[in-house]
Order: sequence, then C-alpha cells, then structure tokens
Amino acid sequence: MRAVDLIRTKRDGGQLDRGAIEWFVSGVTGGSLPDYQASALLMAIVLRGMTAEETAALTDAMVRSGVRVDYPGLAATAVDKHSTGGVGDKTSIVLAPLAAACGAPVPMMSGRGLGHTGGTLDKLESIPGFRTGLSLDELRRGVQSIGCALIGQTAEVAPADKKLYALRDVTGTVESIPLITASIMSKKIAEGIGGLVLDVKYGDGAFMKTEEDARALARSLVDTGELAGVRTEALLTNMDAPLGRGIGNALEIVESIETLKGRGPGDLESLSVEFAARMLVLSGVEPALDRATARIREALASGAGVEKLRQIIANQGGDPKVVDDYSRLPTAPDRDTVTADRDGYVVAMRAESLGRAAVGLGAGRDRLDAAIDPAVGFTVLAPVGTPVKTGDGIIEIHHRGGRGLEEARRLLTAAIAIADQPARARPLVLDRIYGRSQ
Amino acid sequence: MRAVDLIRTKRDGGQLDRGAIEWFVSGVTGGSLPDYQASALLMAIVLRGMTAEETAALTDAMVRSGVRVDYPGLAATAVDKHSTGGVGDKTSIVLAPLAAACGAPVPMMSGRGLGHTGGTLDKLESIPGFRTGLSLDELRRGVQSIGCALIGQTAEVAPADKKLYALRDVTGTVESIPLITASIMSKKIAEGIGGLVLDVKYGDGAFMKTEEDARALARSLVDTGELAGVRTEALLTNMDAPLGRGIGNALEIVESIETLKGRGPGDLESLSVEFAARMLVLSGVEPALDRATARIREALASGAGVEKLRQIIANQGGDPKVVDDYSRLPTAPDRDTVTADRDGYVVAMRAESLGRAAVGLGAGRDRLDAAIDPAVGFTVLAPVGTPVKTGDGIIEIHHRGGRGLEEARRLLTAAIAIADQPARARPLVLDRIYGRSQ
Repeated sequence: MRAVDLIRTKRDGGQLDRGAIEWFVSGVTGGSLPDYQASALLMAIVLRGMTAEETAALTDAMVRSGVRVDYPGLAATAVDKHSTGGVGDKTSIVLAPLAAACGAPVPMMSGRGLGHTGGTLDKLESIPGFRTGLSLDELRRGVQSIGCALIGQTAEVAPADKKLYALRDVTGTVESIPLITASIMSKKIAEGIGGLVLDVKYGDGAFMKTEEDARALARSLVDTGELAGVRTEALLTNMDAPLGRGIGNALEIVESIETLKGRGPGDLESLSVEFAARMLVLSGVEPALDRATARIREALASGAGVEKLRQIIANQGGDPKVVDDYSRLPTAPDRDTVTADRDGYVVAMRAESLGRAAVGLGAGRDRLDAAIDPAVGFTVLAPVGTPVKTGDGIIEIHHRGGRGLEEARRLLTAAIAIADQPARARPLVLDRIYGRSQ
Repeated sequence: MRAVDLIRTKRDGGQLDRGAIEWFVSGVTGGSLPDYQASALLMAIVLRGMTAEETAALTDAMVRSGVRVDYPGLAATAVDKHSTGGVGDKTSIVLAPLAAACGAPVPMMSGRGLGHTGGTLDKLESIPGFRTGLSLDELRRGVQSIGCALIGQTAEVAPADKKLYALRDVTGTVESIPLITASIMSKKIAEGIGGLVLDVKYGDGAFMKTEEDARALARSLVDTGELAGVRTEALLTNMDAPLGRGIGNALEIVESIETLKGRGPGDLESLSVEFAARMLVLSGVEPALDRATARIREALASGAGVEKLRQIIANQGGDPKVVDDYSRLPTAPDRDTVTADRDGYVVAMRAESLGRAAVGLGAGRDRLDAAIDPAVGFTVLAPVGTPVKTGDGIIEIHHRGGRGLEEARRLLTAAIAIADQPARARPLVLDRIYGRSQ
C-alpha cells in the first residue's frame, strides 16, 4: 500500500476501504507514516468527508491502536456519558453517582477543559486529594467495587487518537465530523462500555454553533457507536447560555453536590436525571425509560446519589467531607458583581463570552499545559428569564486579587442582554437521536 | 502569523493575501515551516483552488526564493518556450536554434523525462559530450555569445519549487492548476525572460487528459505570466498520438536535426515554426507574426537553424559532428517491428501507451534518479491516417537485448487501432490563448 494512493483516493472523493484505514492508523501510531502524508490525508478527509462505514473503520482502527478495557463479573452492562463540551456543564458529576447508585456500572473517562469550555477532570481535582490519574486496573476495580470511577484518558487507550489529535491541532484539521466522531468514539468504545449517552450541544457556547451541525455530529456519533456494537443515544441540547448557576471548578463541584441533594437548578437537575435514566436502560438495569426515571428520582430524593459521590471521592483519594462542608473546597478571596444597567428581563447570557472570561480569571486554560485556579469563576444570580431592576446583581465574580477581572467585566457586560419583554425560552433538549436499528 | 490560521483560511475557501503566501514560501524554503503544515495547506489549495492574484503571488514568492537571471547588453528581449510534456515532443530542440538564428535570445531551462513523457535534457544528453548542467554564468554567456543555451534547472533558480514539488509528489498534491502554474512559471520567470510561449497539451499522452483542463491550465499560465510582466501566449495542442516519428532520446535528436534540415515530419515542423515565429515577435525581433514566420522559414531553408544547433552543441561540450553523421549518436543493437494485423487505416496510436512502452525499453524513467538508455525507442513507420495492409510495419522497436520488448509489443499492439475508414483528423493546434490585455 502506498500512502500517496490513499491520499489521492480521498482527495478525489473516493472511499477508503477498511484495510487502507487500518494501514493509515497503524502507520500514524507506529511512526512509519510521515506526518506530512498523514496531514495531507487529514485535510482531504476534512474537505471530502467520510462515509459512515469509513468513520466506523477509522474508529475501530483507533480503538485497536490500544487496549480495550473489560469488567469481568459485572451484573449489568457498563455505560458512560459524553458531552461535546459547554460552559457550566457539570452534569457528569451529577449523573454518574446517580446511575451507579441505581446499579449501572459507570467507567467514565473524561477530559480537561480547553478554550472556553470546562473539563470534568479539572472540576474533580478541585476536591482536595482527588486523583483522576488512575490506572486501568484501578478503573476496573473502582467499577467492580463501587460501580463507578471518574478518570482521565490513559496512555493505553486509543494512542492513535492522541497522535492524530496533536497533528490535527496544528494543521487546521480539527473541524471534521468524521474525525471528531472517531476521536470521541474510539476513546469511549475502548473504555469497554456497552451503552453510551451523548450530550451534543449547539449554540453560542458549544463547539457546534448551529443546530444543523450538531444534528449531523449526533447522527455520526450514534451511527458509529451502533456499528461498533455500543448502544448509543444522543440528546441535542442548547448551550446559548451556561448550564446551571456555577461556572468555575470548585463552584461547579458545590453546585453538583447541591443538585444531588435535591437543591440544584432545574435545568441541571432535569438534564442529569434524563441522562442517568437513559444510562439505566442501556445498562439493562431497567427495561423502560419511565421506570428508570422513577429510580433515578428516588436515588436523588433518598440521598443514595450523594452517598455514591461520597464513595467515589473516598475511593479516589479525595476528601469525602467536602460533600457536607463546602469550606473544605478552595474559595476565591475576592468578589465583584456585574449588575443590571436597566430594568427589564435578562434575555441572553452568551455562554462563550462567560467561558472566555472564566479562562481570564484562571479557571480554564488556552494551552493544555497551563495551570488553573480551582477557586475562581462566576455565580449566575439572575439567569435568562429573570426580571431585574437597575442595580440588581446578575453575575457574581469570584476572583483572586483582580486577575482577569477587568476583561471579565467587559466580556460579561457585553454577554448579558436585558429587554423589556422576556424572550421565548428555547427548549433545553431540542431533540433525541437514536440508532437506526432502534 | 500562524500557519494554522493560513491553513484554516484556505480550507474554508478564503483567499490568502500576498504577505501570507510569502511567509508560507519562505517558511518552506528556509525550513521553519514544518512539512506537515505545508502539506495540509497544499491539500487545501488542491481542493479549494486559488485566485489569479493568489497564484501570481505564489509564483512571485517562488521566484524570489532564488535568483532571477539577467542578460546585460542583449539587443532583443530574452524569450523561452515551455511544454507541459508529451510523447515524441522534440519541438524545443528544433525551435530554439531557429529562433536564436533569427536573433531572439533563448535561455532555455528544461526538465528531465518522468513517467511516460520524455525530457529535453535527456534527449540532449544523448549527444556525446553534451553538458546540460551549466552554471547561470555559463547560461548567460551562452545567450550573450551565440544567442541560446539549453540547460537544466540550477539550485539557485526557484529553490522553493524544488522543495514544494518533492512534498507534493508524496502527498497527492501535484494535480492542482494553481500549484502547477506556480511551479512552471516561477522557473521560467527566474530565467530572466520577457516573453514566453507555452505548449499546453491535452489528450491521451498529456498530463491534462481533457481539452477543458488544458484550457484552464493555459489560461492560468498566461494570466500569471502577464501579471509578472512576461508577455505570454499558449497553444492548446493535441497529444492523443505522438508528435513526429521518433520516440526515444537519440532517435529524437536525429529527427530534430532532420527537421532543421527541412526533411522532418509535417506536424513537428509546423508546430516548431509557429512557436519559433511567436518567440521572434515576443522578443521584439519582428513586429508581426507573418513576417516572423517568413523569417523562421528562411532560417529553415537556408540551414541557419541547423548551423545554430551545431554552435549550441559545440558551446556546451557536445560533438557537433553528430549533425552530419548520425552514427556518432548511440544506436540500439536490436530491432523488432509491430505490424498491421488487418488491412485498413491507422486511426489511433495512443501516446501514453507508447510512452510507457518506451520507459520499459529503458528510454525513460519512473523515478527521478533512474538511469536511462539513450539509444532505445520507437520509429513510427505508419502514423495515424496511413493506409496499411496486413503485415505492413507500423512501429519499429529499437531495443537492447530484448529488455522491455515483450511488454512493449503488448502495449503497442493495444495502442494501435486500424479501421476500414480513416478517422477525421483532429487539428494539432486547437486554440491559441493570449493575455487578457492583448
């Protein structure tokens, strides 16, 4: 096989067969394929696309570039959830304990924040002592013993993705539905799950700005999961405004715990419950969504969910007392407030601007190796839809000695819109995408 | 400037400005731009194209990656001719002496054969002693003293092209009209010419298989030349069948000399005369094409052309006696003949197959570093249009000990078509393309 022939085939709009795709992925992983040929092929894929079969073959080859975890002795199918990334999105930290508390095994491998979006690993690491760098053996034991572990990607899982992503990042080849699909799904499939729920976000603060793009990505992800034998469902959810009230790592941990105690904001609770219930069905614990939803609501009401989070924290070396005493979490020394400059209703709070402002405070990072400040961030006092009077607080800023404050005030002021009439609410969940065979 | 931003701009169909293109070319030439970013940008250019302004900027940056020759003290403008490559195309070797004999300075920088197409340098080097590897000083002196030198590309001329072409060759990014344009025109402009005639071939044996593609390439080449201040004209010529009767290096030298003596095949002579006459006009030696054509025909009839070739050969270290004694050229020891298998008219002789068969005999190369055999090749006994009877010779094969013979017989037999009626002749020159300002 010659690399230039594969490149020319894709360049001219042709389809690559499974053997060619495997050869490409193993060449990238093993280093026998030069980067300049890989990047030319990646650009041809970006501009010519891939069929569902090609995407599935790429995903499969990337899975097989590393190990695929298994969990001997589980009573139910292992399940996971993945989000394409948003601002204030802490659903994973709410739904994983809830699903695990009801008997669904949840081996969850998450990422770090980058750019304006936050990352589950960063949030968890704001809990003193919490280790996300577990080995695959520790992941397996956590799932077998308490039903859940929340970890970062290990070197054994889909190493091809790591190499390809590094190349895509510097060659303008990130924005491609088949390449995004293979990157996400290879890591999820390698976790050893049999069911997956996906939160595909669209809107201002999402990677996909339009409903159309998000729908295409959701379809590609679901089809690829199903072709790999993983039952996969996706929700298309809106990310024009942040999810919940807290933005920033420790602030989001507090909000997650509050939600598990039944005191969280409605949008976060309802989305977490729906995902957790779907995971119960996919894991085989409950046969139907209505029964599963009732089980999850019970786990919320009984405190079984928050108890499971306590177990997870303890199992991963963290301080479980944070669940009852938020003062054990890092807090920022300084506060400031953005207030309403007129009477009216809050009609917009653009998520991307809030995310960027949070990065400026130190809550996130623009480069993967940058350090973050777990304490800083925002508390939304008046979310979209709230009536306000001039001078009312809209967003509280948690900062450290004014770092990033001025820029944050500027961004937040521009991100907030107040109007005479409340805007018609967009539904949080726009649509649900299932496998074609379902 | 960040490479990834340039790549994304072109990927999304945008236009690169002159500064960005210069930065790219100097990064490639100097080695500061990694190959994987260059190849991603090249693929984006292949699939998104370039405007005439972008192509001109790319060409200009490639010219300025090296030196641009000049010729102080010339009485007329230096002119050259370039062909996109064909089978049996030895017009350069006929027209350069003719134009120079009439007073047009011709600094001609040519290439080697690759794949099924032959190269002027390889043909010239079949003349014992002939040196094509002249320095730019020797080129300048040759033009100043005898009006013409025929040389290969030197390292000082458009070094960016050499680097880019090596990368394009292995990344499936050769087939792009703007990239082909910049590659051809940067080398020609760097020669220091003020006028250029182009032979853009289409058909079976050409790089461009369709008239449409050839027309687009011709338009791009002419526009780019004009934007660089070089008066440029292109002829669209047919390359379904080989040009002339000889294919193979020494065989083509003999045919070129015969043509300069007025005994060449009509297609080769008429094309050489037209190009040479156009060069006379572009150089300012003659004001109009009819006068220029008459001058070239005189140089043919008087023997001034063949005398100029003799001078060129002597000036470049070759044996000028070959002009009168073809036995001083290499000849193949063995002969074989492909004959007609039925009565009728030769209606097709597919050039690409003949070119490939010639490579098999050793006359050409599939890799740039392969050695060639100057003696082997074909003599066409019955060109397209000739009536033949069963058993008549159609092509004589000049081979060495049977190397490549069997494959050549197979390819030639399949390449030749004989029918009851002669096919309608396609015009050799389909169209003439001029600068928009003319």
